[in-house]
Amino acid sequence: MAKKVLKFGGTSVGTIERILHVAKIIKIEHDAGHQIIAIVSAMSGKTNELLKLSKDVSENFNKRELDVLLSSGEQVTSALLAGALTEIGANSKSWLNWQIPILTDGKNLNARIVNMNIESINKFLSEKGIAIIPGFQGISREGDVTTIGRGGSDATAVAVAKIFDADTCEIYTDVDGVYSTDPNKIPVAKKIDKISYEEMLELSSVGAKVMQSSAVQTAMMYNIPLEVKSTFTNREGTKIFDQESIDYSKSVTGVAYSKDDAKITLMGVEDKPGVAANIFEPLSKNQINVDMVIQNISSDHKTTDLTFTIKRDDLSKSLKILKDNKDIKYQNLSHNDKVSKISIVGAGMVSTPGITYKMFRSLADEKINILAISTSEIKLSVIIDESDTVKAIKKLHTVFDLD
Amino acid sequence: MAKKVLKFGGTSVGTIERILHVAKIIKIEHDAGHQIIAIVSAMSGKTNELLKLSKDVSENFNKRELDVLLSSGEQVTSALLAGALTEIGANSKSWLNWQIPILTDGKNLNARIVNMNIESINKFLSEKGIAIIPGFQGISREGDVTTIGRGGSDATAVAVAKIFDADTCEIYTDVDGVYSTDPNKIPVAKKIDKISYEEMLELSSVGAKVMQSSAVQTAMMYNIPLEVKSTFTNREGTKIFDQESIDYSKSVTGVAYSKDDAKITLMGVEDKPGVAANIFEPLSKNQINVDMVIQNISSDHKTTDLTFTIKRDDLSKSLKILKDNKDIKYQNLSHNDKVSKISIVGAGMVSTPGITYKMFRSLADEKINILAISTSEIKLSVIIDESDTVKAIKKLHTVFDLD
Repeated sequence: MAKKVLKFGGTSVGTIERILHVAKIIKIEHDAGHQIIAIVSAMSGKTNELLKLSKDVSENFNKRELDVLLSSGEQVTSALLAGALTEIGANSKSWLNWQIPILTDGKNLNARIVNMNIESINKFLSEKGIAIIPGFQGISREGDVTTIGRGGSDATAVAVAKIFDADTCEIYTDVDGVYSTDPNKIPVAKKIDKISYEEMLELSSVGAKVMQSSAVQTAMMYNIPLEVKSTFTNREGTKIFDQESIDYSKSVTGVAYSKDDAKITLMGVEDKPGVAANIFEPLSKNQINVDMVIQNISSDHKTTDLTFTIKRDDLSKSLKILKDNKDIKYQNLSHNDKVSKISIVGAGMVSTPGITYKMFRSLADEKINILAISTSEIKLSVIIDESDTVKAIKKLHTVFDLD
Repeated sequence: MAKKVLKFGGTSVGTIERILHVAKIIKIEHDAGHQIIAIVSAMSGKTNELLKLSKDVSENFNKRELDVLLSSGEQVTSALLAGALTEIGANSKSWLNWQIPILTDGKNLNARIVNMNIESINKFLSEKGIAIIPGFQGISREGDVTTIGRGGSDATAVAVAKIFDADTCEIYTDVDGVYSTDPNKIPVAKKIDKISYEEMLELSSVGAKVMQSSAVQTAMMYNIPLEVKSTFTNREGTKIFDQESIDYSKSVTGVAYSKDDAKITLMGVEDKPGVAANIFEPLSKNQINVDMVIQNISSDHKTTDLTFTIKRDDLSKSLKILKDNKDIKYQNLSHNDKVSKISIVGAGMVSTPGITYKMFRSLADEKINILAISTSEIKLSVIIDESDTVKAIKKLHTVFDLD
């Protein structure tokens, strides 16, 4: 008998038929003797519908009230799922944010789960009850409703798994696992059976968006075994473990890409301490997320060139900030909004020599120009022209034996 | 400066434009120096939409979870209205059932408000804040979400007015007050400026459905001044007072009617104690609401005839109960599902002789057959053929000087 946290995303509970189907999945697990806590998202489209209502009232809607508004979505799903379980003869009960309670820190719309009271739910589980918890929300120490950011139901699931000391945390979604690259673009993409937290993080942060990254980080920190699987098929999903418990036969696990990127290069930047901070501080203050940063070694030790990538949507805002800010000194600024980032990811990379060379060689063979390069222990990313994206992914997927 | 409870029904908050309009109404009252607590219903159609979702899951949906589901409707409106008030520069905050809390007794779907904590809201009001409370709901002593029956937002408004010791309770709705009869049927119907609780009760229980009856009863019990008015016009509404503070120039205040009635007559019922209880107990246990009951005096002191009316929807169920139950003895059973009830209502009736005669005479003049009669201190009701409904209302409206 295991204690399991099962999380069902928006499309998994998008209609009443799907909610009834999810109830059956839960009942099968429960009948197998497991203790079940289910975390649910809002029905697909619901959160956007509520957001639209708020925007129709005000583009700058009161943040406290926005949390009250949005949290109703998961409340609805929780009640419907508990009702569906009752209908098929299971003993089930929803537990709202304040009933547990789920205590959070931080601001409205961006809170962080810090604790939960486990006593009454554990008692209910020991009496063969199935507990349903709305994802994405909690309450503050002041007793206000809080939400924890889009995709926050994953974070709720991992937090519940940690605080209730669950044996596994299973993320049910509309894809059947994590793939070696985007199966919609590259038909030979393969589902990965096992992956480390780190690889998962690198893959999910660059396009293969199966789980919210901060939830994977939390799972990694507390070593909570995850499994991503499909609500709609019975196929095995992808298990996400501690790196050490995975046997790496391949040096590269997957090829990820990110669309909608833009690149900015500042040439002739003064090469002295504090300059990078001067550049990135105003961007950060304006909620602009800088992804890759590449600084070339300056030959004269006086000036240097700095390249970084941002989301394409943030380009015009970023350019304005850089131009308006008198503290930022450079000789020339260029930008390119038609780029994409291609990354090869693999925990085995660090111990396999020649990966970097192999990647650059393959792209050169395809006459793909590399605009920037960035590396980490388990990832190697390049910025290329957007038009070369599919060609690059296909080539790398083949070269690294992933087909 | 007064403390005011303002309640806005489903159509009043049915769209974002209407919510913004309601915010303006509230702000005008607040700017005039009043302390405001606003009670809101779910946006029109929302509760039915949620009910339909529950029925798609199960015809016999878990009652505890149904309350969790339904209560989300008013939560959404509360957040949107508080956000709309913020948008126009007012300091406003929603207070959910558990945040106040609104303590209820009784069962799910049919709970009753017993208390609220007034401290933090009163503090907020004294700091010029506008408090928004979702109607129709509360929490039980066990900490479960409860709802208080359809139309329950009226009951919330009156309970809040009582517990917070408000000066008035204003019910904003989609009609501009209580009318002397149905203005859709009888064009000469007139809006009543002032009416007693008792008259309002009699009128609202027989068709002029402006406010939930039990809310009027509570207001009467605690002498809370009510006002029913339109959200969409600036016209004066109808004020509902204690009977003694109204000057009655007319003996009859209004003519009400109820559609969808059915009549059952049991002939040859044994005339001895306990017989009526035997008949009505099984009906009551099956949630069938018996309205008028007329028992004729028996000539032989052995058997009697018993007539009563019920909702037409309940007719076949009622007939089955009466036929199946061996404890209920009678010689003959007849029923008529094409009847309606016409009532003249007026607190001045009791002190005006000849009203009864005048009513019967008028109906006879129109060749309308009276199938049953029932009287109370401020109401005189007759059961007639449904096809005579409009003719009867028109005649009585004229005869009693209401045109």
